[in-house]
Amino acid sequence: MADDDLRGLLDRHDLAGVQGWLDAHPPHVIADELARLDGTAAGVPFRLLDKDRALAVFEELEPVDQQAILAGLRDQAFRDLVEGMDPDDRARMLREAPAKVAKRVLAGLSAHERQMTAALLGYPAGSVGQIMTPEAVALPGQLTAGEALQAVRDKGAQAETVYTLPVVDAGRYLIGVTGLRDIVLSSPDRPVAELVDADVPRVSATDPAEQAARLMRETNTLALPVVDSENQLLGLLTIDDAVEVIEAADTEDVTRQAASGPWPGHYMAVSVWRLARSRAPWLVLLIVASVLTVNVLQVFEATLEAVTALALFIPLLVGTGGNAGAQAATSAVRAIAVGELRGSDLPAVIWREARVGLLLGAVLALVGLTVGTVLVGGDIAVVVGLSLVAICAWAATVGATMPLLAERLRIDPAVVSAPMVTTLVDATGLIIYFLIAHAVLNL
Amino acid sequence: MADDDLRGLLDRHDLAGVQGWLDAHPPHVIADELARLDGTAAGVPFRLLDKDRALAVFEELEPVDQQAILAGLRDQAFRDLVEGMDPDDRARMLREAPAKVAKRVLAGLSAHERQMTAALLGYPAGSVGQIMTPEAVALPGQLTAGEALQAVRDKGAQAETVYTLPVVDAGRYLIGVTGLRDIVLSSPDRPVAELVDADVPRVSATDPAEQAARLMRETNTLALPVVDSENQLLGLLTIDDAVEVIEAADTEDVTRQAASGPWPGHYMAVSVWRLARSRAPWLVLLIVASVLTVNVLQVFEATLEAVTALALFIPLLVGTGGNAGAQAATSAVRAIAVGELRGSDLPAVIWREARVGLLLGAVLALVGLTVGTVLVGGDIAVVVGLSLVAICAWAATVGATMPLLAERLRIDPAVVSAPMVTTLVDATGLIIYFLIAHAVLNL
Repeated sequence: MADDDLRGLLDRHDLAGVQGWLDAHPPHVIADELARLDGTAAGVPFRLLDKDRALAVFEELEPVDQQAILAGLRDQAFRDLVEGMDPDDRARMLREAPAKVAKRVLAGLSAHERQMTAALLGYPAGSVGQIMTPEAVALPGQLTAGEALQAVRDKGAQAETVYTLPVVDAGRYLIGVTGLRDIVLSSPDRPVAELVDADVPRVSATDPAEQAARLMRETNTLALPVVDSENQLLGLLTIDDAVEVIEAADTEDVTRQAASGPWPGHYMAVSVWRLARSRAPWLVLLIVASVLTVNVLQVFEATLEAVTALALFIPLLVGTGGNAGAQAATSAVRAIAVGELRGSDLPAVIWREARVGLLLGAVLALVGLTVGTVLVGGDIAVVVGLSLVAICAWAATVGATMPLLAERLRIDPAVVSAPMVTTLVDATGLIIYFLIAHAVLNL
Repeated sequence: MADDDLRGLLDRHDLAGVQGWLDAHPPHVIADELARLDGTAAGVPFRLLDKDRALAVFEELEPVDQQAILAGLRDQAFRDLVEGMDPDDRARMLREAPAKVAKRVLAGLSAHERQMTAALLGYPAGSVGQIMTPEAVALPGQLTAGEALQAVRDKGAQAETVYTLPVVDAGRYLIGVTGLRDIVLSSPDRPVAELVDADVPRVSATDPAEQAARLMRETNTLALPVVDSENQLLGLLTIDDAVEVIEAADTEDVTRQAASGPWPGHYMAVSVWRLARSRAPWLVLLIVASVLTVNVLQVFEATLEAVTALALFIPLLVGTGGNAGAQAATSAVRAIAVGELRGSDLPAVIWREARVGLLLGAVLALVGLTVGTVLVGGDIAVVVGLSLVAICAWAATVGATMPLLAERLRIDPAVVSAPMVTTLVDATGLIIYFLIAHAVLNL
């Protein structure tokens, strides 16, 4: 699709070429390319877009990029843009914006839009309330399908979606939801009350957004009704926002798995300093933890001096233990994330993973024995083989246990990253190795 | 919500209790609990569900669990269930089913359903064609909005969705799409042709499903039209299927990151053998690759015998290099997965990551120097510090480069897992360490 010619056109100050490029590409491709430029550079092509396309492109940008674009706009264009955004997208951007930008945005809004945005901003970080749309078409339960269709025609233009229609009673308490499909397909005089699905899961505005998003995935719904603690309707959580939540959560999990934080914005646009800062804290923590391996080896320094060949297998053993631990930890973290595992499964998981680790260790021991015999011969090969069995069983068990323990302690299991498990298993693996060496070699 | 009492009730053969539990829980919770049981045990509660709820629960199960349930059903119940499934879900299950089950399913279907299912089964693995729904309500472009609404009423009952409506010309060639919302909100005599969004991305039935799903996420669409190579409409890719594709792709990426394959079905239900089998091939590959570290250390064995203290820092250096490499690799794999990086970015990425690695190495060198000085003193501490700088820069560069190279070679970048990078960096890191030791210690 797009290649790098937008940047090329900009570098050559070929504005006619830029205009042509913009006309030839759909909004999501334009947004992709703008995200790769830095904020100031992105402002030039953005200002060449007409009003409707500008909004379409703007809505597909990440909050950091949106702020950069906004900073370069004059008042009228600025106001058109923020007024045109959906309240939930606007709140999302404001939450990450510096106070100066946020003030300017709120000041530029109509009273109605400002009120909706302010309400969303009040919900806790990562909650459903922050990403729901307050603009749902709520149907009173006593309407007929024909009247409901008319209500959608009257009030649907402002709503983010009219496909999921919450049904409420006189006090705006949620009865259930129906769909525009059911309204359209049923005979006009049928009461809406007969078309209500009262079993649909409802989420609270203070529920974690990721949990609600995964529930939507599981139940294949396009929108879930959001209620307050009294069951009064507050809005709808729509699938497009849920998908973004799932993708962002998965990105966070993936980067945490490698002991690194997520970074804001586009990989190619974020600065080298920022990337380093997202990784440095973990690396420092891990290197401090791995000083333990130096201590363990110091304890066995005499053994190493006597049998230097033992040192040859340290990276292989430590690496394999780390890999086995990382596999188990990652399986457990993912199973927790998608809802297959919970804290109470801990004993069952320990038992499963210990057996998996023993099986894997037995297979690897064959490789270790062979390699050891060829490279250094008999006794040390036996030590390596036995160590592999013990280290794998230990690593798989620890690896799967740590995320579940974190879950029980209400820490995000993804924090128990593969590198963390690896570092922990390294030191204990060395102890196992040298104890087995002492036993087998009669040291 | 649900706890483990379903299993408890089953263990006590308390069928009345099971019935009560089933009545008290919504379909997605029942599906979750059934997935945790093995196939035979799940059949008992499943047969207690009435027809409609049975279908709702069945649709939320994974294909492996669906097969296990089907195997235990008598003919009428079996036929009701498979006839009631959406064609794309049915095709998905059949693709993973043994030939005997697949035959029985196809034989039980009506001619119409069988034809649709067979068509979906013909598309390549992982393609859009496999998960699209062929049952879209296609509107001829010359209709008015009022006539279009009538067409939805006439044909919408069988369709999987009526919210996205493809608009076609006389030869069923795709013009664009419109939404039920636009049809409902516009005046009845307005031509559908005026409501068409012709810019909507269209996907080919042979396109990779993950790419199409991420495109839906980016463009916030509920359904994308699927066409053949001639631009004739074949069906719709709906958001619920796209979300499943994204989640499955992320699970695969996450597990691959830890050098492990995904496993079919629920973590708690899959056998220990199967889990071990999903991990063993990678572990064996990695241990064979890490024999290289043994070879490297053999080359420097004389150095190790002379200065045993050098051995003490091997796990720390190898571990830190692995962590830095894993961070960079994971960042790159994720940025490629969500579309932020492409093969042509390689030179820019190498330059970025080399600088990030140098920065990180400098920070870690301070820790290394301090620890080295305290534990073993002067010269070796300098060797450790310098090695950390060099190893970090090297590891970050290699880690980010490998996924991009894979992308260029059209291999899934996620195959370049953190453990693979780690293992590769281990051996080269040791060479760097000993070369620096030789230089600094004048060996």
